[in-house]
Amino acid sequence: MKKILNDIDQLVEDMLNGMVAAHPNELKRVPNTTVLTRKKSPESGKVGLVSGGGSGHEPAHAGFIGDGMLDAAVAGEVFTSPTPDQVLEGIKAADTGKGVLLIIKNYTGDVMNFEMAAELAEAEGINVKSVIVNDDVAVEDSSFTTGRRGIAGTVLVHKIAGAAAMRGAELEEVKLVAEKVIKQVKSMGVSLSPCTVPASGKPGYSLGDNEMEIGTGIHGEPGIERTSIMTAQEIASTLFEKINHDLDLASGDRVSLLVNGLGATPLMELYILNNSLSALLKEKQIIVVDTIIGEWMTSLEMSGASITLLKVDDELEDLLLEKADTVAFKRGV
Amino acid sequence: MKKILNDIDQLVEDMLNGMVAAHPNELKRVPNTTVLTRKKSPESGKVGLVSGGGSGHEPAHAGFIGDGMLDAAVAGEVFTSPTPDQVLEGIKAADTGKGVLLIIKNYTGDVMNFEMAAELAEAEGINVKSVIVNDDVAVEDSSFTTGRRGIAGTVLVHKIAGAAAMRGAELEEVKLVAEKVIKQVKSMGVSLSPCTVPASGKPGYSLGDNEMEIGTGIHGEPGIERTSIMTAQEIASTLFEKINHDLDLASGDRVSLLVNGLGATPLMELYILNNSLSALLKEKQIIVVDTIIGEWMTSLEMSGASITLLKVDDELEDLLLEKADTVAFKRGV
Repeated sequence: MKKILNDIDQLVEDMLNGMVAAHPNELKRVPNTTVLTRKKSPESGKVGLVSGGGSGHEPAHAGFIGDGMLDAAVAGEVFTSPTPDQVLEGIKAADTGKGVLLIIKNYTGDVMNFEMAAELAEAEGINVKSVIVNDDVAVEDSSFTTGRRGIAGTVLVHKIAGAAAMRGAELEEVKLVAEKVIKQVKSMGVSLSPCTVPASGKPGYSLGDNEMEIGTGIHGEPGIERTSIMTAQEIASTLFEKINHDLDLASGDRVSLLVNGLGATPLMELYILNNSLSALLKEKQIIVVDTIIGEWMTSLEMSGASITLLKVDDELEDLLLEKADTVAFKRGV
Repeated sequence: MKKILNDIDQLVEDMLNGMVAAHPNELKRVPNTTVLTRKKSPESGKVGLVSGGGSGHEPAHAGFIGDGMLDAAVAGEVFTSPTPDQVLEGIKAADTGKGVLLIIKNYTGDVMNFEMAAELAEAEGINVKSVIVNDDVAVEDSSFTTGRRGIAGTVLVHKIAGAAAMRGAELEEVKLVAEKVIKQVKSMGVSLSPCTVPASGKPGYSLGDNEMEIGTGIHGEPGIERTSIMTAQEIASTLFEKINHDLDLASGDRVSLLVNGLGATPLMELYILNNSLSALLKEKQIIVVDTIIGEWMTSLEMSGASITLLKVDDELEDLLLEKADTVAFKRGV
């Protein structure tokens, strides 16, 4: 294992400190926790948005703290849910009296710990609601999940719910729009090479020299098929077909795209994949209203990419295109 | 070799089309060239900024097209300089009558082809000046270079010269501020694993299971030393010492940092590296006025990172912090 780090036991600590050192005007730590929050508290009267989960998916989630997205992010150890007491600290940091929405990726540990934290916060008088993102169409049930996994589509939930909260929506409204996104956002990925969890020191799985896997999870959970390496066109078409089995897009429908690198895939290849995908959508007369491309929900140094499609209506498109100013994602300068 | 692509011969073409498809309101292609330029021409009366070089370093350089940075970028084949006729097209696309500054990374092919293009443009009546970035302190002379190589520090030249041009500076002034940056910006990197140029199909070099190289170039050019894997602290300290041999920073000096991933290194590790580096600078009472962290000047899927330090004065700091709105880099929402 070759990684740039100091002490494996201090990895998350060092990362969080390194983030605050890099973005001292945007981020601060809640002392003695793994919670990052805004440097300046949002005005009271805004619903707070909190997300988080295991580390190793950076910039998710702390990179999305800022205007128009999240108010706090809770980091667990690599690929491990943060504990309820940490999530509780995140909720407290984000609450300005108008309640907090938790955006949880659908993994058993995350769901359990975030919901336990919600109960603890409710007991302290904070109004908390939560939504669970399960955008990965690859498999039902998996190593760490009952039902579908939550992957890169989560970033679009942050974006749209964050815009609604920034505009002053009430907690119940923010929750409803987040649920609307979750219903319409579908993702799937391919992996070309695995990642290595630092504490284990070994790749989570292996792939042959000319082999790839379709539908791998962001923690290396098994996908649905191994095959020899496909072209960008074949990958775009395979992932689109599986996603569209659920979305059932018709000519004239509008979508937002997110093409996501898993960690080690050059941006060049993501653009080539986007070229194939956008040609395919054009052929089907599906209208792309927005494309976000880069590394947003990574899996350490896994090589591969995922495609996310969100079917938008006027409300979702408007919120999606609203400005945002976070560490990792900025829009509307 | 496992990469997401269609046809190796169409790689740059597919990438450029994929970029325009992703950013249709920001970028357009100059037909029948490998030039990307702004979708909307900048107002006349602004000095044009053009950069480019071999592909494989994305988001450099086309990702930096937009307000406050570049007006056009010229893409060559992977790790291969674009030809003079292509660069000429870039110059024409960026010129609004106030002249064009070429920002060239110091590689023999780039310098020759960009300067030949400048002559061709001058012959057509366009006022062209150029600057050559040579920020890599690792080695003098290398596989493709006489003198020092140009690497990630180039992005800070784009940023600062771009801000000056946006504010209405004349060509000569923009050139002077670019040269001031070049004088004060120093970089060096480490590689943990190599990249594979698609046309060759094989990694450019090999490193042992526990081995890293200090000072590798962004095309895989040899560095100065191979060693067993160092900690983040050791990497930060080794690179800083070499950089500071040139910059000669003293307590109270102000710097801007750029921590750059080479392609396959998780953002987590870049933040850990930044944590070590910023602690070291704090100890030396060097003031960090700005930190830019992520993948800005990559080497396909090379694993590793580079550190760039720019010693700033009031003028450079002010221009650095000016707003920018490009595909890959946004500031000042």
